Amino acid sequence: MMEKIYIIGVGLIGGSLALDIKRLHPKCTIFGIDHNEEHLKEALSLNIIDAKAIINDIANADLVIVAIPVNVTVKQLPEILDKVGNDTLVIDVGSTKEDICEAVKNHPKRRNFLAMHPIAGTEFSGPSAAIHNLYKGKTNIICEVEDTAFKLQEKALILFNEIGMRIRYMKPKAHDKHIAYVSHLSHISAFMLGKTVIEKEKNERDIFDMAGSGFESTVRLAKSSPEMWAPIFEQNKINVIETLEEYIHNLKQFKEFMEKDDFEAVFREMKETNHIKEILKGIA
Amino acid sequence: MMEKIYIIGVGLIGGSLALDIKRLHPKCTIFGIDHNEEHLKEALSLNIIDAKAIINDIANADLVIVAIPVNVTVKQLPEILDKVGNDTLVIDVGSTKEDICEAVKNHPKRRNFLAMHPIAGTEFSGPSAAIHNLYKGKTNIICEVEDTAFKLQEKALILFNEIGMRIRYMKPKAHDKHIAYVSHLSHISAFMLGKTVIEKEKNERDIFDMAGSGFESTVRLAKSSPEMWAPIFEQNKINVIETLEEYIHNLKQFKEFMEKDDFEAVFREMKETNHIKEILKGIA
Repeated sequence: MMEKIYIIGVGLIGGSLALDIKRLHPKCTIFGIDHNEEHLKEALSLNIIDAKAIINDIANADLVIVAIPVNVTVKQLPEILDKVGNDTLVIDVGSTKEDICEAVKNHPKRRNFLAMHPIAGTEFSGPSAAIHNLYKGKTNIICEVEDTAFKLQEKALILFNEIGMRIRYMKPKAHDKHIAYVSHLSHISAFMLGKTVIEKEKNERDIFDMAGSGFESTVRLAKSSPEMWAPIFEQNKINVIETLEEYIHNLKQFKEFMEKDDFEAVFREMKETNHIKEILKGIA
Repeated sequence: MMEKIYIIGVGLIGGSLALDIKRLHPKCTIFGIDHNEEHLKEALSLNIIDAKAIINDIANADLVIVAIPVNVTVKQLPEILDKVGNDTLVIDVGSTKEDICEAVKNHPKRRNFLAMHPIAGTEFSGPSAAIHNLYKGKTNIICEVEDTAFKLQEKALILFNEIGMRIRYMKPKAHDKHIAYVSHLSHISAFMLGKTVIEKEKNERDIFDMAGSGFESTVRLAKSSPEMWAPIFEQNKINVIETLEEYIHNLKQFKEFMEKDDFEAVFREMKETNHIKEILKGIA
């Protein structure tokens, strides 16, 4: 039964899920909850949600999707579980999983909750960034599936299958460790690249005329929302610092090869990384 | 008059120029010169070139395009100029300009030469990577235009206009300094990001299942050709090392903010870089 669906946080991630669910289940009602009144209005006018709601309305929800910054999720998830009915499925979509799972570990309604991380998104944010089929063919990592009630597991998996997501199961600890490498570090590398170039070229804006699609691609993630990302880095602090240390070490070594005029080593460093081509072929 | 055109280096950059020129001037003959016999065969079979040639054939060329690694350009450009006729236009497309311009500064045929850097490309290489309209709407930086003969300047500008490139004039020194920021640094950041993740995850290949389009975008340039890029970094060593120092400094500072639990500073770092959005809007 998917009749009453509540999206808490009607931005890129929550809004895109709303669009997919509405298309698949045209008869359901999608309610939006957001502390940002402008976003709610926008989501309504874009037909991402059918109606506004408040947090106390979720008692009769079939599905609640929590798509807010991860620090807020940690705080609010227990209260959300407090309020839902016995058959409500509550899903969170945060980019960290350890602290979120920990926050509801002993909650009496733990079995109403499914922790997941759909690996999808764009560098844009807010309801206007929501798009259809954002999740099609994308990986969805589910954590601690065994702690979710059977019936609700099944309900969730049917929905994810309809949406077209590929499911992978992981422990929260492993998720956070590996996602630091394949997602969180990319964001920092892009932000700091953007910062380095802007600092240098701030008085020569027309220099960006020289920038090509390569620069655009490498720096794209620096458009991402700091409101979403600062809490992610905070929650995944230990893993992210480790990735940063390794990244900085590799950059320093590359610089040292250049300083020593060892361009054979510079060449080798790149050649050995070139097989990222084959690795990336697996990514849509 | 554009009848006989010689492309030295029939890869992504030279091959894509060949495709555009042939489309615009169907009656011209495009000759390919390459030390890689396989690439010549491939370029022929893909109709990128009409015939193979050798370096001594260029005496009667209307246009010679030099699209080979920048270290080879520095070595061979004087010999190429030695061989061409009085009305031949010789263009190089290298990603560095200072050493190349220096190499032919006092050459008796200096006025037959135009130094340029079209800011276009993809992460692929070789003749099979050549595509139509790669240069359309892209910036083409011309250096030391006043050192090229008037008639040949004109011939070149007509061609670039037909191809659809936007022209910018710069001094070689300024070109090399700024391009280190908006292009060369991006490549190193991508290569080292790829290296860091591959090193970490080498025993867990299925981890790349977790990588999304964000990672793909940030690491895309790590597919680039080391044969092209090692000589670029060597020629632009001083500028590139400077950009790397600033980039590493910024990454270390970000890491220190995280270590000190100063997530307000982490937020601010990202927020201040967010206006890269507006800057990137100018890039096609």
